Amino acid sequence: MTRFSFDISGTDGAARTGVIATERGEIRTPAFMPVGTAATVKAMRPEEVRASGADVILGNTYHLMLRPGAERVAKLGGLHKFMGWDRPILTDSGGYQVMSLAELTKVTEEGVSFASHLDGTRHMLSPERSIAVQRLLASDIVMQFDQLVPTSSTFEQQRHAMERSTRWAARSREEFDRGGEHVERAALFGIQQGALDETLRKASAQALIDIGFDGYAVGGLAVGEGQEAMLGCLDFAVDMLPADKPRYLMGVGKPDDIVEAVARGIDMFDCVLPTRSGRTGQAFTADGPLNLRNARFAEDSDPIEPGCPCPACATFERAYVHHLVKSGEILGAMLMTQHNLWFYQRIMQGLREAIAEQRLKAFARSFLERYRSSLRA
Amino acid sequence: MTRFSFDISGTDGAARTGVIATERGEIRTPAFMPVGTAATVKAMRPEEVRASGADVILGNTYHLMLRPGAERVAKLGGLHKFMGWDRPILTDSGGYQVMSLAELTKVTEEGVSFASHLDGTRHMLSPERSIAVQRLLASDIVMQFDQLVPTSSTFEQQRHAMERSTRWAARSREEFDRGGEHVERAALFGIQQGALDETLRKASAQALIDIGFDGYAVGGLAVGEGQEAMLGCLDFAVDMLPADKPRYLMGVGKPDDIVEAVARGIDMFDCVLPTRSGRTGQAFTADGPLNLRNARFAEDSDPIEPGCPCPACATFERAYVHHLVKSGEILGAMLMTQHNLWFYQRIMQGLREAIAEQRLKAFARSFLERYRSSLRA
Repeated sequence: MTRFSFDISGTDGAARTGVIATERGEIRTPAFMPVGTAATVKAMRPEEVRASGADVILGNTYHLMLRPGAERVAKLGGLHKFMGWDRPILTDSGGYQVMSLAELTKVTEEGVSFASHLDGTRHMLSPERSIAVQRLLASDIVMQFDQLVPTSSTFEQQRHAMERSTRWAARSREEFDRGGEHVERAALFGIQQGALDETLRKASAQALIDIGFDGYAVGGLAVGEGQEAMLGCLDFAVDMLPADKPRYLMGVGKPDDIVEAVARGIDMFDCVLPTRSGRTGQAFTADGPLNLRNARFAEDSDPIEPGCPCPACATFERAYVHHLVKSGEILGAMLMTQHNLWFYQRIMQGLREAIAEQRLKAFARSFLERYRSSLRA
Repeated sequence: MTRFSFDISGTDGAARTGVIATERGEIRTPAFMPVGTAATVKAMRPEEVRASGADVILGNTYHLMLRPGAERVAKLGGLHKFMGWDRPILTDSGGYQVMSLAELTKVTEEGVSFASHLDGTRHMLSPERSIAVQRLLASDIVMQFDQLVPTSSTFEQQRHAMERSTRWAARSREEFDRGGEHVERAALFGIQQGALDETLRKASAQALIDIGFDGYAVGGLAVGEGQEAMLGCLDFAVDMLPADKPRYLMGVGKPDDIVEAVARGIDMFDCVLPTRSGRTGQAFTADGPLNLRNARFAEDSDPIEPGCPCPACATFERAYVHHLVKSGEILGAMLMTQHNLWFYQRIMQGLREAIAEQRLKAFARSFLERYRSSLRA
């Protein structure tokens, strides 16, 4: 029915490597998706995002429906044409942003009514509207609309939200399947909820499998529970999801989070960290993060990360990047973002190769030891 | 004594076209120099600046001496290496910024004592210190240190500042000539002052010629006097400067200013307008400036300027750029700046060809009529 497919070419323990095929191109897994919130991966041109090794980017339903508006993007030919990115785009459902950014939100069984954080205008996001928006954007991978609750919620609140997300998953599926041409070209992913509770996660996974999706996301993690709790949850949650479909850990994460999650069977990731950190002067390196604002870099003639093949490291020294970041220069955000995206994609490439060659354990141990050594220092 | 030379290959009326040769490459004239205030042409990578057609950029002595510091830039190998631009750089003397940006300034015959606008630390700029800073930056074209006075000044104040600038020109020349190796590689320009007064301009030019410089700038214009007054001053001021040396109109200007000034015999220009306007949403086009923030562009599928060969216009539509600018996205500043720099360089290329083919009058009339038609609308 859809041209979407997932071919696993190699496994190593719980980890897998392979290719997701979409009409707009292949996605090598494990895959990291740079976040293009408002129809731009901030401070990067589309060809620079591609050159970093990204096969797919993420677009935000919440942001785009408010500005420039989903109907407007559709009128202009869809999100790919609008932003000059002709490869796959995964759109989130808006479920996360509407709870974290919007104001005066009112959640009912129908959906979430809210006021825009931009201008206060009132809007509605429901499973039907979220899917319709993602269709207007011409998304390649559409996410179901789900309900999120704070980590501080009671078990009853978590169960209630998980069950409602399950009902919204069915409504998302139904609305997606009414999509005509878009159904032929796009895939729909369900989102497992249930906080850190194994019983809730199991019930959620089973209900989603009964509905049937092209891929399955683990939702509701990386929301402040800490790395240990998150990995503990993945230890039981991932295996509940079908082995032959892509598994996507939403909103993750730090480089070490990603390596640990891949070892537990996750195939896809998205996170604002490499782009957002790039704009505040934090560089990711194999030896851990560096804050380029630090005065110790003021006369450092190394590149951001010695040995890095990215264009920023090929030309510029830390001393210069330090100056740009301290001076608030746009070029500083451009160079730091570029380095960080290349660094993330280099990790993914390393993981894919390690899995294919069944040496993931050694790769992960070596990566984590080196990466975390500076964090302990 | 220096490798610097100016070869005029064609003239048309008062206008000239040719090549300034420097150790770091040729500068085709008439030339527009993008401004790289803090060791970066804002929102642009060096290779993107070059691709726009720029042969030379301008660096700011005042900004760079305060941050990252001239001695630090020298220690890191000079400004070219620091910022990744291996072609010619002209540095201003700091005379303009110290009067417009610094605080608690105190002007004496010795020089200008001031407090940094960044952190309040006290510094001194004198002819000797300005030239020393420009030498530390490894500038290719060094400007004399001069004294500026507001347009509202009395004739006596203007005469006094012009005469002091003349004495500072001699001190700048002396300090420059003490520069050893730098003298072999760099050129020194004098700056004509005298506000809008023909007698003062004549006295200034004559004194500078007596000292002897590699090129001559027209200073103290484009500071609020209006286009008509500026062009009226150029009508007599330019001809006072040696015909066989480059003539540089500092801080100019709008596209129509440049065309008018080239027709009066100016060879070099610098201005923040294409870069600064790019960051605020103003695009320059052959049909006049456009404010891309305007809602009428929200669904406009034309490029920023139809027919423009720049990378921004090759890929993106006005609707997208409008969205980026409205959303405060960095990519908006990147694309708009790029278009504007290409537009300015296209004007320069058009002027050079028109002069070489002795059809400048027709070119200027046609350009100005079209450019100004929208301004009258």
